[in-house]
Amino acid sequence: MASEICRRVDELAGISEEAGRLTRTFLSPQQMQASDRVTDWMRQAGMQARIDAIGNVVGRYEGDRLGLPALFLGSHLDTVRDAGKYDGPLGVVTAIACVDALNRENIRLPFAIEVIGFSDEEGVRFGATMLGSDAVAGTFDDAVLNRTDDSQVTMRDAMVAYGLDPNGVGLAARHRNEVLAYAELHIEQGPVLEAKGLPVGCVTAINGASRYRVELTGTAGHAGTVPMGGRRDALAAAAEGVLAVETLCSGEDGLVGTIGRIEALPGAVNVIPGRARFTIDIRAPVDAQRERAVAAVLKRFAEIAAGRGVGIAIEKLYEMPAAPCAPWLMDQIDSAIADAGITPFRLPSGAGHDGLAMKAIADIAMIFVRCEKGISHNPAEAITAADAETGARVLLNFIRNFKVPV
Amino acid sequence: MASEICRRVDELAGISEEAGRLTRTFLSPQQMQASDRVTDWMRQAGMQARIDAIGNVVGRYEGDRLGLPALFLGSHLDTVRDAGKYDGPLGVVTAIACVDALNRENIRLPFAIEVIGFSDEEGVRFGATMLGSDAVAGTFDDAVLNRTDDSQVTMRDAMVAYGLDPNGVGLAARHRNEVLAYAELHIEQGPVLEAKGLPVGCVTAINGASRYRVELTGTAGHAGTVPMGGRRDALAAAAEGVLAVETLCSGEDGLVGTIGRIEALPGAVNVIPGRARFTIDIRAPVDAQRERAVAAVLKRFAEIAAGRGVGIAIEKLYEMPAAPCAPWLMDQIDSAIADAGITPFRLPSGAGHDGLAMKAIADIAMIFVRCEKGISHNPAEAITAADAETGARVLLNFIRNFKVPV
Repeated sequence: MASEICRRVDELAGISEEAGRLTRTFLSPQQMQASDRVTDWMRQAGMQARIDAIGNVVGRYEGDRLGLPALFLGSHLDTVRDAGKYDGPLGVVTAIACVDALNRENIRLPFAIEVIGFSDEEGVRFGATMLGSDAVAGTFDDAVLNRTDDSQVTMRDAMVAYGLDPNGVGLAARHRNEVLAYAELHIEQGPVLEAKGLPVGCVTAINGASRYRVELTGTAGHAGTVPMGGRRDALAAAAEGVLAVETLCSGEDGLVGTIGRIEALPGAVNVIPGRARFTIDIRAPVDAQRERAVAAVLKRFAEIAAGRGVGIAIEKLYEMPAAPCAPWLMDQIDSAIADAGITPFRLPSGAGHDGLAMKAIADIAMIFVRCEKGISHNPAEAITAADAETGARVLLNFIRNFKVPV
Repeated sequence: MASEICRRVDELAGISEEAGRLTRTFLSPQQMQASDRVTDWMRQAGMQARIDAIGNVVGRYEGDRLGLPALFLGSHLDTVRDAGKYDGPLGVVTAIACVDALNRENIRLPFAIEVIGFSDEEGVRFGATMLGSDAVAGTFDDAVLNRTDDSQVTMRDAMVAYGLDPNGVGLAARHRNEVLAYAELHIEQGPVLEAKGLPVGCVTAINGASRYRVELTGTAGHAGTVPMGGRRDALAAAAEGVLAVETLCSGEDGLVGTIGRIEALPGAVNVIPGRARFTIDIRAPVDAQRERAVAAVLKRFAEIAAGRGVGIAIEKLYEMPAAPCAPWLMDQIDSAIADAGITPFRLPSGAGHDGLAMKAIADIAMIFVRCEKGISHNPAEAITAADAETGARVLLNFIRNFKVPV
């Protein structure tokens, strides 16, 4: 199946808003073009296909009777700016390839299959992520319709221009009874499978995340005239904080902590920083683990600040609980991996995925495909055709043997 | 003497290029106004006064014979932008007040006194510091004449507009034989004297300084998907570097080390920094001490980078050797302080001063006056009238008893 999958990924990668690099955002003309191609492929695979009320492409392959509840598969068709070509599209075209394989053998299962190409997961255009899956899950927030893009076009107007009704997003919502589970194949976007020498893995959870902004306030002063013992250097306190995050978030499976931004003020080579600001991003597959790490980090920050006589202000920017994958689905994915002759291996997803939204109406699962050097959100994003094949075989095994526990 | 000193400092503070705040830069019309006032005060104190070839105000009080070598006193008349009023002018008006006191008693000493109000020490207008004292010391670099200010006016043209000859700067240079010593009274611009509860102190050296720019190169990555153990986080390495500078520059008298600027790239909350840049400023009163600290810091950085598998590039931005004050002058200043009933106390100067230039033609000394909270380069800069009085009494004691060792 790999040659067709890779050909289609390449074909979608050619549909971009920007010359020379891949950028395809929500409600763009290029998204419409990509949706047309995906719709064609779905129909060729024996599915009924349509564009739903938020612009998702939805294909349905009936089961052994009409109108059965469905196993939902899919991923997203939008990209970040200057994107890699696998992040999203790989999951959509692989799911279609699996349905095509069933269809070629005239196999009908005791459940329907729906494949969704979500119209927005990355949130590039309007700064709100997972609009496509939120709409399907019935958790779409109408307030985001008033957001504007960089050209000051509201989402509402962009929907009208795309041929959608901004007052009708609710029609994309699916009922829990229609959905047996949601399973997504996606590139890992990290280095773990490569390090393990494995082509695929079973995701345990989409990690929850906590983000904070920290501001430390010491005393600015002349870099030459204030003795070391008399300083309240906000950046030195921040540096202790950076290392505390690294230490307190290390050594536990799945837990990660990152300082991505830092600033010292006033920011002159010969002035002791009177203020320092930085951000913290802490993620873990288990909420209690993340909450424990956040508490330890914030406690340590308070100690650092107190120890240095430096003021500290901490602002929570964002909090998203983890979306654990369902154990019954993980077991079936492990079996599908083993059936492909691969050692089953489980890993958390540090990045967010549509399952975060879909979990509102269904148990979720994910299959990760090994990604070269863990690089993603970058044109250098790469997988091998062999791994694409393995991923497709695992997903097909999973579908063929899929069974909702009684 | 304090009331006149403070009145004159206030009068000079009223001569500014900017409404509502004190800014007086090299060769500005306001500098000419300030020079006129200082010239008047010098003449009232019994001195001959003139503007020299770089715009310095130079007053001469003859000794018991005409044409004797002189004890040089002074400080600068230019300011930073939004300056405090004591940084510079205090030393000029205090020196004039001391000469005035001698003159009122008709005292002539076995040496002449020259008081200089330097026209540029801060270097605000043309980005080159100590132009006034460099010219007197004969170390003025004609290349700076081609520098331009923010309005694209060259220093050359600004000199002509001021009434000076840009080709004649060399005429401001004084010969070593004319100068017995250079002594400057200045506010401390740091918190040491305040912490010691002392109104004045004797400076041991104008600290030397080394500045570096450091760039660390790790691997950028997704903050969610790269496990802690697999990271090469450039900012975490930089944070270790910040703390290493703090540790390695602490615990030694006079040594200070500062990280004033820091940056993590690409600089997003959810991206592991692949690069980090920061500056280092290390100062010490003794060059060997500074060089030892710099070597220890750079060695530690190499260890940190190697330990984390992170690349490191270090660029030297600036190096200025220390200007030690002459022991014979420090002894005479200590005596002058003791004669004023104050415990003599010695401290280095972390900030640069005109003595850095004057040391090319003379032994140098400085008296520091306590400065409120160590604040300088700021309108909040403050001293008490009592400390101004003490400073003036110490300088006068020093002058009265000044003796060149045989």
